[in-house]
Amino acid sequence: MDRENDYEVFAAGDVVLQHGATLRDARLAYKTYGTLNADKSNAIVYPTWYSGWHWDNEWLIGEGMALDPADYFIIVPNMLGNGLSTSPSNTPPPYDRSRFPKVTFYDNVALQHRLVTEHFGIERLPLVTGWSMGAGQSYQWAVAYPEMVERIAPFCGSSVTSVHNQVFLEGVKAAITADAAWNNGWYTEQPTTGLRAAARVYAGWGFSQAFYWNHEYTKLGFSSLEDFLVGFWEGFFLQRDANNLLTMLWTWQNGDVGQTPGFDGDTVRALNSIKARTLSIPGEKDLYFPPEDEEWAAGHIPNAEVRVIPSTWGHFAGHGSNPKDVRFVDDAIKELLTH
Amino acid sequence: MDRENDYEVFAAGDVVLQHGATLRDARLAYKTYGTLNADKSNAIVYPTWYSGWHWDNEWLIGEGMALDPADYFIIVPNMLGNGLSTSPSNTPPPYDRSRFPKVTFYDNVALQHRLVTEHFGIERLPLVTGWSMGAGQSYQWAVAYPEMVERIAPFCGSSVTSVHNQVFLEGVKAAITADAAWNNGWYTEQPTTGLRAAARVYAGWGFSQAFYWNHEYTKLGFSSLEDFLVGFWEGFFLQRDANNLLTMLWTWQNGDVGQTPGFDGDTVRALNSIKARTLSIPGEKDLYFPPEDEEWAAGHIPNAEVRVIPSTWGHFAGHGSNPKDVRFVDDAIKELLTH
Repeated sequence: MDRENDYEVFAAGDVVLQHGATLRDARLAYKTYGTLNADKSNAIVYPTWYSGWHWDNEWLIGEGMALDPADYFIIVPNMLGNGLSTSPSNTPPPYDRSRFPKVTFYDNVALQHRLVTEHFGIERLPLVTGWSMGAGQSYQWAVAYPEMVERIAPFCGSSVTSVHNQVFLEGVKAAITADAAWNNGWYTEQPTTGLRAAARVYAGWGFSQAFYWNHEYTKLGFSSLEDFLVGFWEGFFLQRDANNLLTMLWTWQNGDVGQTPGFDGDTVRALNSIKARTLSIPGEKDLYFPPEDEEWAAGHIPNAEVRVIPSTWGHFAGHGSNPKDVRFVDDAIKELLTH
Repeated sequence: MDRENDYEVFAAGDVVLQHGATLRDARLAYKTYGTLNADKSNAIVYPTWYSGWHWDNEWLIGEGMALDPADYFIIVPNMLGNGLSTSPSNTPPPYDRSRFPKVTFYDNVALQHRLVTEHFGIERLPLVTGWSMGAGQSYQWAVAYPEMVERIAPFCGSSVTSVHNQVFLEGVKAAITADAAWNNGWYTEQPTTGLRAAARVYAGWGFSQAFYWNHEYTKLGFSSLEDFLVGFWEGFFLQRDANNLLTMLWTWQNGDVGQTPGFDGDTVRALNSIKARTLSIPGEKDLYFPPEDEEWAAGHIPNAEVRVIPSTWGHFAGHGSNPKDVRFVDDAIKELLTH
């Protein structure tokens, strides 16, 4: 079976979202790796990132790695809006495309929680981990279900989307929507000019100054800077649906564990309520999730440590494409799992 | 007289550019401050920055400051493409708008050199200084006219545009040109959707993560983040002509003192040839002209020092809007001028 079809679906029925809309016949696409043990104590949740799909997470799963399917039952839920779970691109009218409702990190995690508890009957999670928006979901799990989550290892992501990060995303959004073909989301074909523009905007943010200075993109198999911009970045964005990207972008821009029900917007109180042992793993040169933000968050979490990935790959230190960074993240999670 | 009309023009005739085109009836708009002394030994050249006009440089000129008109004769030449000097927006057909030729840093400085020597009869310059692309022009002066330039104080800019910086600019360019109204430069009205998108892209780059984290934009008189994005950034870009912006963007992307005639693309050799006492003043948190790049350049200049502006204002530490940073830059230049 090709990877695009190799997944399960949790049919969640009608789901009322935090911002009021009802997602009817909501579907959560997921894939599992390994076997749930008898006492259901070995499950790890590992959500996807901005526009990523479950198979994009597989680099961190494998024999001899922290997330070893021989030891753990690893559940990778696809984010709402990523095109596999309920999304603008696969929802029938009237909530299709531009009318797809606003979805929060909490909405995503509440749905994942139902999969984990209702479908699998799991009551404890030794770990929730993820990259980027997957890191945001990790924090969100720890705040929403403090008694259930034993550890979190968010890498290259944050518990609250900083103002600067919001501004970076404004640029991406403005590039997509500057294309007249976007047509307020009612396009008949993808607004490729806007998607390509967004790709070029994103290119400078995804990797660090030093990554480009050292021409590291040639190590990814690209023959020149322009080849990297077209072959990697434009190719990446052209595979995505514009409305899906804008839906997930809204989720990201509005990320804040303080918006979890019961916390009334108080981010610090939300962080303070986390019971999970927390190992935050930011990238040293990440331009939109800088280590300082994680230091700040860790200062408000009772049992937290920050371990910075010493890498010039910027945000993509957590993408799984640089072997040295893969080892660093994997080692950190291994150590966390032994405590 | 209003500031838009308060300047002089050096009519340079037909100017052959580095990339082969001829700029016919080229005009260099400039303004001077102070008086040229009898032996013509007190002139400072202080070129403009990306899309800036001469009056945007005035914050660094004044009584009691390093650039004091009582002591120095300060010449502020407007960059080609900025709308006052010869630009896409003011050139008649056939070289108008989209057909405006490619202009390099060297082309700009060679024209400024003619103003300084032919028009004013000046043979030595105690200082060339400037922000951002003005810093690039400072380096260019020192490489092209090593016997003439005694000191340079480039702030928040570089001698060669780094690959990452080129990529950042690709995003700005892609945003402007994603607007169908741009029409390959043959617009009848400004492509405002593209200009606004470029403004939002630029917003995340201009100031640092910490600037936004600390809501420093409120100190600039903006009431919210969105007010800053619209009021400052969109307002900034809407005052500019799209083709002018793209012309100066090309100049910037292709900045490299190694492209000075005689150096055959060898940036290091060009830096090594600089005779000016060099004080490079990068901003600590500048996202596209990071201090590391200046350390690298200084390592190849015989008589160079790097003094980092300790500021969270990122690139805009050199914009003149943060009093603390103004003092730092001014003090640094004062000290340089005494040696």
